[in-house]
Amino acid sequence: MSLGEFDLIRRYFERPNVQEAAASPAQGVQLGIGDDCAVLRPTPGHDWLVSTDMLVEGRHFLSTVAPGRLGHKALAVNLSDLAACGATPRAFTLALSMPRVDEDFLQGFAQGLFALADAHGIALVGGDTTAGPLNVCITVMGEAPPGQALLRSGARAGDDIYVSGQLGDARLALEVFRGKAALTGEAFEQVRQRMECPQPRVLLGQALRGLASSAIDVSDGLSGDLGHVLQRSGVGAALWVDALPRSPVMAAQPAALQLECLLNGGDDYELVFTAPPQRRHAVQAAANASHTAISLIGRIEAEAGLRVLDGKGQRMNPGFRSFDHFKS
Amino acid sequence: MSLGEFDLIRRYFERPNVQEAAASPAQGVQLGIGDDCAVLRPTPGHDWLVSTDMLVEGRHFLSTVAPGRLGHKALAVNLSDLAACGATPRAFTLALSMPRVDEDFLQGFAQGLFALADAHGIALVGGDTTAGPLNVCITVMGEAPPGQALLRSGARAGDDIYVSGQLGDARLALEVFRGKAALTGEAFEQVRQRMECPQPRVLLGQALRGLASSAIDVSDGLSGDLGHVLQRSGVGAALWVDALPRSPVMAAQPAALQLECLLNGGDDYELVFTAPPQRRHAVQAAANASHTAISLIGRIEAEAGLRVLDGKGQRMNPGFRSFDHFKS
Repeated sequence: MSLGEFDLIRRYFERPNVQEAAASPAQGVQLGIGDDCAVLRPTPGHDWLVSTDMLVEGRHFLSTVAPGRLGHKALAVNLSDLAACGATPRAFTLALSMPRVDEDFLQGFAQGLFALADAHGIALVGGDTTAGPLNVCITVMGEAPPGQALLRSGARAGDDIYVSGQLGDARLALEVFRGKAALTGEAFEQVRQRMECPQPRVLLGQALRGLASSAIDVSDGLSGDLGHVLQRSGVGAALWVDALPRSPVMAAQPAALQLECLLNGGDDYELVFTAPPQRRHAVQAAANASHTAISLIGRIEAEAGLRVLDGKGQRMNPGFRSFDHFKS
Repeated sequence: MSLGEFDLIRRYFERPNVQEAAASPAQGVQLGIGDDCAVLRPTPGHDWLVSTDMLVEGRHFLSTVAPGRLGHKALAVNLSDLAACGATPRAFTLALSMPRVDEDFLQGFAQGLFALADAHGIALVGGDTTAGPLNVCITVMGEAPPGQALLRSGARAGDDIYVSGQLGDARLALEVFRGKAALTGEAFEQVRQRMECPQPRVLLGQALRGLASSAIDVSDGLSGDLGHVLQRSGVGAALWVDALPRSPVMAAQPAALQLECLLNGGDDYELVFTAPPQRRHAVQAAANASHTAISLIGRIEAEAGLRVLDGKGQRMNPGFRSFDHFKS
């Protein structure tokens, strides 16, 4: 069978409800898939936020991943960038390179992609498909009231440091795939799901607008990503290892492996954010309103650098190895 | 040497003038590269146009292409989509997958990319770099006054059909690389440049707002791309072969090869557009104002289908083979 590029787009990526959405100025999509450009109408006066992420087989996902989970993850990592800025998702484009047309793959991929898109009310408005090594590139767009986007540059000495959810499970799953850790049955499935199906903290991000002084999502590892915040904000930080939130599966691992996963594990897509201590109640209320667990894990300090403290407040010296695509 | 992902972004893709642009609300860029998202501020009430194109080695460009020309082409094919909609370019993101960090490649690529970006006043506001098979994915964003974007769906029976520039040279160059045509010296360099350095017709597209009834850019071949306009508009067309604009190099080729390149050759990135005959003078004035040659090449007809007529008005039966990434 020979399904061509245009048939493929129509069959898997043009949806009746996207076409309906295209007729709805409420969502701001004037015209979706099918022309040279999508035509959107942003909310007048609001800021328009844009981010792009490219996923490559063997780097960002394993060849063994289920197509539905890949579709989910490709959009999730992009939504996570909108979440980190507190933006409301609006629209996304998808560029997909595949060695050949595999209908089982496409069906599963589209299913996972659209399930997450629908959950966040974001419309697929355009894209590109081509033959080539498997590569998924998504660009997301969202909105925030003017000047209210959460940035990396606003952390101030004295601010609390929080993280959502739990850290390190995605890295633990990767270590199992690498043969460096052993997990079986339900425990493995739990951490594998964290690696393959991250949940972007979109509602939390929006709830933190006007409350958080800075935010970033954990894609390359807590130490590295918090490091970006410290650098951009011109501050340092102390992190309390015992306060880093971890799953029961993680808590059962050897201490050194836990530390490595918690501090340097990537792919968690949790939000790390800062806020002044006087906003502690408001921050907790925002977390409750968005049904997202948060943990207070440290404090911003004037002195540059990242200090990791054990349960007795003693300084530890773990290695920081944030993920770098050209160094790993 | 080991240049990491973040160094790489800083060295080649963060530019002082982009940072300056970031401080300029006039251009609508509130924050460029360096956070989870770029923050833009679209012109209130205007439409926001978005398009994305992915380029894969061996499919969209040959491994022999100079890095500067690849940087140019990757942005040019995207700007061409904005041109086809009559949009004013505003910002773009770049996702780049490369087997390894090759500084010569990056320097050349960035040079070609930014030279074209500067020529069209469009800012690189974000992106992603990763290790993997060479793949360039760009998403462009532009603006148009509300409801004025040129679409594929507006062609009406009786409309003139125009094309900008000259057709088929990119395909002719490809045939030379394939060993199916022979060209040497300056002639080869001319058509090779058309293939590797297409000039997006951005000014012409903007000048045609309010004049053209429909528009599309020639990326997959005149017959196929005009076919999209006919399908979306629910009309047919007659094309006059003798009127199809061609370079002197093309005009010296055998008739069958000319026909194939003119009708089915992709990668030209010229604009094909339609307009009512009573706007003929205004259309020519728009072309003159944007310093772009245009040719009247046919007429929209009520009867569905694409009819190709020879110099005597006799119907020809050339094969239509629009480019399809999964069928070629």
